[in-house]
Amino acid sequence: MGCAGIARKVSRAIKLAPNATVVAVASRSEEKARRFIADNHLPEGTRAHGSYDSLLDDPDVDAVYVPLPTSLHLQWAVAAADKGKHVLLEKPTALSVADLDRILEACEAKNLQFMDGTMWMHHPRTAEMQGLLHDPDRFGQLQLVSSIASFQSNPEFLQNDIRVKPDLDALGALGDLGWYCIRSILWAVDYKLPNKVVAFPNPIKNEAGLIISCGASLQWENGSAAMFHCSFLAHLTFELTIVGSRGTLTLSDFLIPFEENSAPFSFASDSRLSKLKMGLEELPGKHVVPTEFPQEARMICEFSRLVEAIKVSGSKADGKWPSISRKTQLVVDAVKESIEKGFEIVEIVG
Amino acid sequence: MGCAGIARKVSRAIKLAPNATVVAVASRSEEKARRFIADNHLPEGTRAHGSYDSLLDDPDVDAVYVPLPTSLHLQWAVAAADKGKHVLLEKPTALSVADLDRILEACEAKNLQFMDGTMWMHHPRTAEMQGLLHDPDRFGQLQLVSSIASFQSNPEFLQNDIRVKPDLDALGALGDLGWYCIRSILWAVDYKLPNKVVAFPNPIKNEAGLIISCGASLQWENGSAAMFHCSFLAHLTFELTIVGSRGTLTLSDFLIPFEENSAPFSFASDSRLSKLKMGLEELPGKHVVPTEFPQEARMICEFSRLVEAIKVSGSKADGKWPSISRKTQLVVDAVKESIEKGFEIVEIVG
Repeated sequence: MGCAGIARKVSRAIKLAPNATVVAVASRSEEKARRFIADNHLPEGTRAHGSYDSLLDDPDVDAVYVPLPTSLHLQWAVAAADKGKHVLLEKPTALSVADLDRILEACEAKNLQFMDGTMWMHHPRTAEMQGLLHDPDRFGQLQLVSSIASFQSNPEFLQNDIRVKPDLDALGALGDLGWYCIRSILWAVDYKLPNKVVAFPNPIKNEAGLIISCGASLQWENGSAAMFHCSFLAHLTFELTIVGSRGTLTLSDFLIPFEENSAPFSFASDSRLSKLKMGLEELPGKHVVPTEFPQEARMICEFSRLVEAIKVSGSKADGKWPSISRKTQLVVDAVKESIEKGFEIVEIVG
Repeated sequence: MGCAGIARKVSRAIKLAPNATVVAVASRSEEKARRFIADNHLPEGTRAHGSYDSLLDDPDVDAVYVPLPTSLHLQWAVAAADKGKHVLLEKPTALSVADLDRILEACEAKNLQFMDGTMWMHHPRTAEMQGLLHDPDRFGQLQLVSSIASFQSNPEFLQNDIRVKPDLDALGALGDLGWYCIRSILWAVDYKLPNKVVAFPNPIKNEAGLIISCGASLQWENGSAAMFHCSFLAHLTFELTIVGSRGTLTLSDFLIPFEENSAPFSFASDSRLSKLKMGLEELPGKHVVPTEFPQEARMICEFSRLVEAIKVSGSKADGKWPSISRKTQLVVDAVKESIEKGFEIVEIVG
């Protein structure tokens, strides 16, 4: 649904995924949809729809991928659910958690699978790292998560991209990149919501008042803490550092692995400095996790598997995915509220 | 002056440095000083003083290294300067910038060299990284610094170490580890003071009310931002990430290199994601900087070189070192003030 740049990448992912097929592409003009199908070498017979409504009426479509501007998510994700289509929705999922709740309710009412487009969740590295974070003997209790997501956008992007237009993507860099930081933090704490969120003073805004760079700190009642920074103005950086009482996990490409077929991370446990000489007794371990499919194809596989289970076996939609989307959106909203209130501490009530 | 654990490391560094000699060790008992000399295999003829005053009256002593608890710095650093001794003072330099100013004035009055014990400043890696940060074509304008310094202390440390005693080291983890984070941030921005500092909510304190884990964000008028976290409760982590508009520099052992003879960092410039496939067009570069001497020996070399220049050639004391100590202490003070005022934004007036 829509021919955004990211749809090219996802259409390739659908081609790679063994359990999914692109059956139709919709754009606001049939001509544009047809061109997208040709440019991306989609299978012969892929239908071109000249409107989103026409796509939603296509009986061969089980599920829709929605990469539309965030301001259109509420309308079209609800419309898709009302027509019985499962929904894979690009992030940020909505302009607010209130909007997202309407989308989630529409999906739940018809037992439709909902998932957001946070691709890195599906890389096998993510599961391997999670295993270490859950190991009390090697990682201990979580103390700190630090997450940075940025890219240096060019003047053309800063003038014209939908992500810097208040009427299209009102959450700016917070929605586009902060979403990933917040998700990485929530993932690391097993999706326990923080009780306090406070934005850093002086986020950078563009002329239209949209956030193009900001950060925040998050606190939990048990003493865990997190900090993040996201920016459209800083060099491409996807740093994630997770520190427990007994272990430290770091990686520099959490959002998009720098290589397609494998992804590294570093993990150290119970590191000790030599007593007198400088240095560590044992260097942090380097782990490399291979993957047959890129993370976006794995996302499609997982989404399709869940859709198939509902369609073929009458399973219940997996509630994990809407639940973590909602928590991420809640924290995005809290950061935005803190900025709007002059960097006040915002309390989150789960 | 004093036989603290860190003095063992520094006495080794003095032995390694070709332009410095330990001529005397002072403790509150002569016996303890004598034992320190023997245990650390210091040169024959090294004098043992049973009081700090006696050390300061020793005419063969050009300079003193002061690793005493922070609460004693003002008294003994000023006493040393009054006796004409150059001062290498452990960090945190003082309990407040007002105290530090008295120390610096005492040194300046007699043209004595002052330097604080921030060892990593002297590693050749630091100079190499600084060259990259100053390269507008490869690094661009500084956008973000993120710094983490922590170690997991044992119950014995948390009960008895001087760094958790309000009467000895009232700045706790902020003074011991936050000092390094703040210095790394100031170093990255060329020692331009931030105009706003705000502590993260809910630092962790011990029963005596001393900070054992905290963090803060710093902001500059030009839009640069920094965030840091320091903790006695988290696994050994010395992460530093510096992001410019065109480059990203990362290292995981900024405070103490994990290996003694060389130290790595990663630097990427103008990274671009492949258009369709996942991944970077070019991976970040890995740099490894060898060093003949460990950083603490290089610190001693540099301090001794400055002392010798004053003593032999009548040079003026190098004002860079007191100046950056003072700026670091100013920001430490601002973080403490923000915590005391309920996480208010503190404005720094340079």
